[in-house]
Amino acid sequence: MTRQQLVDQIKAKKSFLCVGLDPDLSKIPSHLALDPDPIFSFCKAIIDATSPFAVAYKPNIAFFEALGAAGWTTLQKVWNYIPSNCFSIADAKRGDIGNTSRLYAKAFFDVKSSGMSFDSITVAPYMGKDSVTPFFDFPEKWVILLGLTSNEGSQDFQQLSLANGAHLYEEVLRTSQSWGTPENLMYVVGATQTAYLKQVRSIIPDHFLLVPGVGAQGGSLEDVADHGLNQDVGLLVNASRAILYASSTEDFAEKAGEVAKKYQEEMAHYLQKFNILD
Amino acid sequence: MTRQQLVDQIKAKKSFLCVGLDPDLSKIPSHLALDPDPIFSFCKAIIDATSPFAVAYKPNIAFFEALGAAGWTTLQKVWNYIPSNCFSIADAKRGDIGNTSRLYAKAFFDVKSSGMSFDSITVAPYMGKDSVTPFFDFPEKWVILLGLTSNEGSQDFQQLSLANGAHLYEEVLRTSQSWGTPENLMYVVGATQTAYLKQVRSIIPDHFLLVPGVGAQGGSLEDVADHGLNQDVGLLVNASRAILYASSTEDFAEKAGEVAKKYQEEMAHYLQKFNILD
Repeated sequence: MTRQQLVDQIKAKKSFLCVGLDPDLSKIPSHLALDPDPIFSFCKAIIDATSPFAVAYKPNIAFFEALGAAGWTTLQKVWNYIPSNCFSIADAKRGDIGNTSRLYAKAFFDVKSSGMSFDSITVAPYMGKDSVTPFFDFPEKWVILLGLTSNEGSQDFQQLSLANGAHLYEEVLRTSQSWGTPENLMYVVGATQTAYLKQVRSIIPDHFLLVPGVGAQGGSLEDVADHGLNQDVGLLVNASRAILYASSTEDFAEKAGEVAKKYQEEMAHYLQKFNILD
Repeated sequence: MTRQQLVDQIKAKKSFLCVGLDPDLSKIPSHLALDPDPIFSFCKAIIDATSPFAVAYKPNIAFFEALGAAGWTTLQKVWNYIPSNCFSIADAKRGDIGNTSRLYAKAFFDVKSSGMSFDSITVAPYMGKDSVTPFFDFPEKWVILLGLTSNEGSQDFQQLSLANGAHLYEEVLRTSQSWGTPENLMYVVGATQTAYLKQVRSIIPDHFLLVPGVGAQGGSLEDVADHGLNQDVGLLVNASRAILYASSTEDFAEKAGEVAKKYQEEMAHYLQKFNILD
């Protein structure tokens, strides 16, 4: 999906909501346990209920991978079920030396090889340029590089001060910009890090940010919108647990849709407030 | 596998060789293409030919994952075929927020969940402590954390100078030590980085190092042994392409065995030179 197609979708739905698909077998409603593939049934119902309000879906690969080969079959079905007008994100946090990253790119981008072709993949930056650039060989596919993550451990290394005065995450943003373009490179910046969003935007004013951490992790959507929106929207805000587990009974999909709708309405308000829909 | 069991294996075989399983469909001998699972046939023959000389096997997960669910079925068969007296490494470079890393741990350590239970997994440090510690909840399982990698991109961030004077990779080694122990935590240090091995050993004298980059990537085994061995051996040196693709015809396994034997003989020499076998 191109950047323009993504922006068009956001304006059409007045939403920059990404629904994170973290299907935890221990949390999904018990009546689904009798289905032949409970995780697919769960994700399908969530997608059906939320797709009027969401522009992106982000399967968390770990939740599928934990089930081995069967989990990968389910992942393929879930990928296939994501509506084609929604942006699909393989939240995989991959990254390895060049010849290996090329294979990870095939795993998530090359339908002939793996049976799947997501629009994007999350990538960890620690191994540097040649671990990231192989993903750009696929046209209209995106890398979403970890910048400043939402978890407590982001303090351990990402926020270290460098000799040049910058924090490590700032250097990651600055250096990696030249590896791609705002047409194929986004960054992960946690919603719990809004104190740093202004600084992030000063380094990368044009790039899209994928912002997890709203909801269960405690980030504020208003703060994210205030500091993160740019004239091309520039934001995908992810919610996972707050939507998926809004109810643990048979009305889970209905309740998930209601939570997604609330996010969408709040997002429409911010898009209007900053005159982005014009 | 415990550290003592690993050290005992190394002393018994007089080898600290790890064979990297990077089975590339475009490189494996053409006569295997008719097999029902060519990648498994290839890995099985490589393991049979090299197991007298190797103490560890390291499937590179990307090469399996590129084939989707079928690749994961093959990976499971390969894991199951690794001899139980050899140390198994899932070279996966995973790492995510705590509740997600727990799922990655299940994928590679919990045979009931995924059908596989490797001895260890490689993990990327960028997301910090809570992305690493969930793997330690599994007894006798190991994290192999990226320290200083063998690729060109290691210069982009790992070798940045921090405000405290250290390089980032040194801070990663120093900080992460307390997350585990030398009984469940190793580090990846590339064989192309021998100039830094002395410094690495001054920070982590006791930990095992997994050293890729010998062979195709150009690192010297002698330099690695000189600067990396400690009194408990402390080294696993990986070779992948130099062994796997020693021949592209029907004698590939025989030739792979010969290359592995040469590494083993050189390793035995270094173990004797430093009086580690006594």
